[in-house]
Amino acid sequence: MLEIRFLPDKKRVRVAPGTMLSQAITKANLAFEFPCGGQGKCGKCKVRILSNCPTPTHADSSVLSKNEIAQGYRLACQTRVFQPMDIEVDHLSIATRETQILTDENGTPENLFDAEDSRPVSLLPINLSAPTLEDDRPDLVRLQDAVGACTFDLELLRTLPSKLRRTNFRGTAVIVHHHLVDFLPPDDDNACLGLAFDIGTTTLVGSLIDLVTGKPLATTSRVNPQTRFGDDVISRIQRVRETENGLEELHSTVIDAVNEMITELCKIASVSSEKIYLSAFSGNTTMLHLVTAVSPAALGELPFVPAVRHSLIFPASKLGLQIHPFARALTLPIIGGFVGGDTVAGILVTDLAGTDGPVMLIDIGTNGEIALKSGDNLCAASCAAGPAFEGATISHGMRAAQGAIEEIVLSEQVQFKTIGGVPPIGLCGSALIDLVAELLRHEILTSDGTLLSNDNLPKDLPEDIRKRITVHDSGPEFVVATAEESGTGYPISLTHRDIRALQLAIAAIRAGIEVLLAKNGIKPSELKELLVAGAFGNYIRPRNAQRMGLLPHTLDPERIRFIGNSSLAGAKAVLLSQRALLQADTIAKMCKHVELSRDPNFVSAYVENMFFPSDDIT
Amino acid sequence: MLEIRFLPDKKRVRVAPGTMLSQAITKANLAFEFPCGGQGKCGKCKVRILSNCPTPTHADSSVLSKNEIAQGYRLACQTRVFQPMDIEVDHLSIATRETQILTDENGTPENLFDAEDSRPVSLLPINLSAPTLEDDRPDLVRLQDAVGACTFDLELLRTLPSKLRRTNFRGTAVIVHHHLVDFLPPDDDNACLGLAFDIGTTTLVGSLIDLVTGKPLATTSRVNPQTRFGDDVISRIQRVRETENGLEELHSTVIDAVNEMITELCKIASVSSEKIYLSAFSGNTTMLHLVTAVSPAALGELPFVPAVRHSLIFPASKLGLQIHPFARALTLPIIGGFVGGDTVAGILVTDLAGTDGPVMLIDIGTNGEIALKSGDNLCAASCAAGPAFEGATISHGMRAAQGAIEEIVLSEQVQFKTIGGVPPIGLCGSALIDLVAELLRHEILTSDGTLLSNDNLPKDLPEDIRKRITVHDSGPEFVVATAEESGTGYPISLTHRDIRALQLAIAAIRAGIEVLLAKNGIKPSELKELLVAGAFGNYIRPRNAQRMGLLPHTLDPERIRFIGNSSLAGAKAVLLSQRALLQADTIAKMCKHVELSRDPNFVSAYVENMFFPSDDIT
Repeated sequence: MLEIRFLPDKKRVRVAPGTMLSQAITKANLAFEFPCGGQGKCGKCKVRILSNCPTPTHADSSVLSKNEIAQGYRLACQTRVFQPMDIEVDHLSIATRETQILTDENGTPENLFDAEDSRPVSLLPINLSAPTLEDDRPDLVRLQDAVGACTFDLELLRTLPSKLRRTNFRGTAVIVHHHLVDFLPPDDDNACLGLAFDIGTTTLVGSLIDLVTGKPLATTSRVNPQTRFGDDVISRIQRVRETENGLEELHSTVIDAVNEMITELCKIASVSSEKIYLSAFSGNTTMLHLVTAVSPAALGELPFVPAVRHSLIFPASKLGLQIHPFARALTLPIIGGFVGGDTVAGILVTDLAGTDGPVMLIDIGTNGEIALKSGDNLCAASCAAGPAFEGATISHGMRAAQGAIEEIVLSEQVQFKTIGGVPPIGLCGSALIDLVAELLRHEILTSDGTLLSNDNLPKDLPEDIRKRITVHDSGPEFVVATAEESGTGYPISLTHRDIRALQLAIAAIRAGIEVLLAKNGIKPSELKELLVAGAFGNYIRPRNAQRMGLLPHTLDPERIRFIGNSSLAGAKAVLLSQRALLQADTIAKMCKHVELSRDPNFVSAYVENMFFPSDDIT
Repeated sequence: MLEIRFLPDKKRVRVAPGTMLSQAITKANLAFEFPCGGQGKCGKCKVRILSNCPTPTHADSSVLSKNEIAQGYRLACQTRVFQPMDIEVDHLSIATRETQILTDENGTPENLFDAEDSRPVSLLPINLSAPTLEDDRPDLVRLQDAVGACTFDLELLRTLPSKLRRTNFRGTAVIVHHHLVDFLPPDDDNACLGLAFDIGTTTLVGSLIDLVTGKPLATTSRVNPQTRFGDDVISRIQRVRETENGLEELHSTVIDAVNEMITELCKIASVSSEKIYLSAFSGNTTMLHLVTAVSPAALGELPFVPAVRHSLIFPASKLGLQIHPFARALTLPIIGGFVGGDTVAGILVTDLAGTDGPVMLIDIGTNGEIALKSGDNLCAASCAAGPAFEGATISHGMRAAQGAIEEIVLSEQVQFKTIGGVPPIGLCGSALIDLVAELLRHEILTSDGTLLSNDNLPKDLPEDIRKRITVHDSGPEFVVATAEESGTGYPISLTHRDIRALQLAIAAIRAGIEVLLAKNGIKPSELKELLVAGAFGNYIRPRNAQRMGLLPHTLDPERIRFIGNSSLAGAKAVLLSQRALLQADTIAKMCKHVELSRDPNFVSAYVENMFFPSDDIT
């Protein structure tokens, strides 16, 4: 085994000779990204090898500059390890573990929390009479006479006789969705915990919930390590279809990360993972297939059919979750091939199905989902936005983590605010929205996406702004933070190529919004509310999102509401409410799945929205 | 690893140095018995070690004669293996694998077989339309729309999308008790098999059933290898209570044997074990606990409480059964601590609960169970008969296997018949009943159990019979087959000690019968029917069973009916009928469990019945 050391943290891992360096990085749990799925094309996985640097591969030479190669930069997805190595990980391409992803449950209606005695997980105090010759009921009959009919695993039954006798038939029965999960001794602390997970294509968020008070005890997030197999769901479905053990590999990759997050959550909250009795998973259709190890292969071919629609409840041990051995796991129901449990969660927690509308819900993630309620009609569609707003295809993009620039204003100078108030290391989604809107307002960026420079710039542009526009071989760039201002020693800028990536993402989302509205005969301005969910940053200014074309500019910005991570909020809701799960199944069944790619108007709407709006709304 | 060779068959096993020879014997799958549970006290496990014979242990010297020790006999339960050995296994103490245990389902009422379309296991032909853009129902919804609501394991769901697409959505759904077990391709042979197991304390019987025709395809039996941990359920419960991994050891011992029997059954019937979708287990309470690895520890202390009453249905994989990976297993319900699924099976297949009675059912095994139906009252009790009638504590006793003497008549000479018509190698239960009855009739045996010899014998005893009584240091013996007549080269005889063992077994069963009848105010002669189940031999003559005191002599022998192995018949019934399983659960719930040991009359009845009846019934 060879030791690989990652600087500056000196994190070490040991790997077998011949291991791909990208796998060593994943093993080291560094939240690295491989947008092109390890094909050696995008260059985002470059690292600097400080010792035993191998000869550059063909891919290295195509993607990296001569200078970079001379300095020891190589593509992690193309480099095999045959000697111990010291690796310097680039600050700009690494997403830290403390990613600040939206995790609050804004907008969760109160009525989704059941009364304590009818919650999905209940702890029932039990005081049974011990068996006598006159009352020799079997153990399980005795217990069920007290708690009511319930199912149970054979494994629990195996331990029940000794548990009952050790406690002299007194203690607490743990019931999860009418399933007997454990019998606890009277001196147990009766902690009762649940896990809510949002399994995103790019980001995993987990929250540990106290199921007695309903309050979150800890929340953590990280990059979905499946990103090393590709950026979007299509590349992961392809991997399952084309690689013999692809499904197993993708499944265990995400489950390993989930288990690490569980360890982390329990450490933060100082609780035992044995007290977690239910884990709820939300996510898009492909992610819910992969987390349960159900093949998503059929999602990669027409007509994109999922394996199930209904929510599933099953032993958590079937996923290898390191929680209570007899705990249960559940997945939210799904609507269709690319409209999944995350959309159901959003509809659930915003009570979209209960409104007359017209109200639209947009969840902007790597896969964007749009739901519309109008009258009795509830429909939903998906569009492949790509991970630009999560920072993944942007040169200096990053998630909303410590050091991310989250707000930008261009006045006489560039003003920005970073998360945590530390020197900046990259741009998160909300900063991208601000920046593009401001560049358009200052006419530095044209509606066709050209970043102007030199003589083409407006005459009255303040000097401090003008000097931020630098021109390179690859085209002009806008420098948000100079090398001196930056926390990395390198400038943080937005490139021509980045603007192209954002145009594509905006076009996909806007086309989706417009086609779905048009299909229902609704104009954007008629929407009573436009709810925006997603993990692309806090504090988004509706006007900037409208200015840069992400949201329709004809809508009163007062009607735009950001609701945070509604996928996670839905997973929390079903931990605390049996009714919420029933409602979720009803939503999945009644919601009409609209296939946008089949709509003749989609392509034209997409092309039209490739252009930024030419005028401000004001 | 050291090689141990067993003669005359030259079966070989390899074991680690220090392994107990008894374990090597178990590993060799020789159906050997260890009645004293490996304590080195009973001497039944003696073997002759032909090479590398070790110094005798203290136990060897106490139990074996000097002559035996000189010839290389040692106790297998006390000898550790440190060198390769050749072992001669005594024909008289080995029970062959071809044990002829009663396996027919006499008395199974016709109405316990459901119509084909409502059986527990059904194969439904499926012809689904393939998904289209207009009909993009998820795979499971599509299938359930055709087969109706059903549960399923996550593991099956994982394979379902690819199975459906490989077969173009046509094939056969396998449903077991409303649980989706598989989806078979259209070219499958649609074999549909089930397993019925009677897990006896001393004997395991398994039957492979064609679930389409209801016919058995093969049946096999063997000694329960748990006998090496002791002869009766009490010694096995003790082992669980006193040994850390005792439960696991006892469970895996019986499951290993069950899996070997499954392999054997499939080989005989030339079928694939993958086609077995349901396995039903009958047996006494302790055995059903051990087969499911549920601790029977509480059965070893007052008030003898089992873990469950109801039948259990669960994934067969939880027992490690080597059949279809998603097959189901079920255990019959139980009545009480020592009245188990075997008794429920007997009551079920004889429709005892449906009669007005008074009718009694006796199941004679190592643990004897007695059930009585009288008016509306159904009650059952147990008594510890011991394995004498299964041959296990009798010097030349054996199971009803090839070579067993099964009928004996004493007239001018000794006349006997062996199973398979081969030279005799031992005495099975029915032979013991015949022999004791005949010895009593000829006044060779007195009612207090004394075997007479020499001058005490009746004057008119035929000479050929008289010379069969030989006198040894240990007392007189009756030689059934001489060394010349025997298939082993040694005489086959009944000893004074054997008669004592039979007296104890008879006393326990008779005391049980009498106390249960007396509690219900019924005289033996009033019984409309006395049904006798058990594995102690075919062709029992009621009059002989009455003469030797096993059954009440005041009852008209015409009313005595032998029904064979009703425990196995019950397991078969629930494979073929959902209604039978419902009935079994009803029986277990309604049947009153009588604790005989608490009855003040039990001990006196037991002592009284230690004496053989003084007069013949004729």
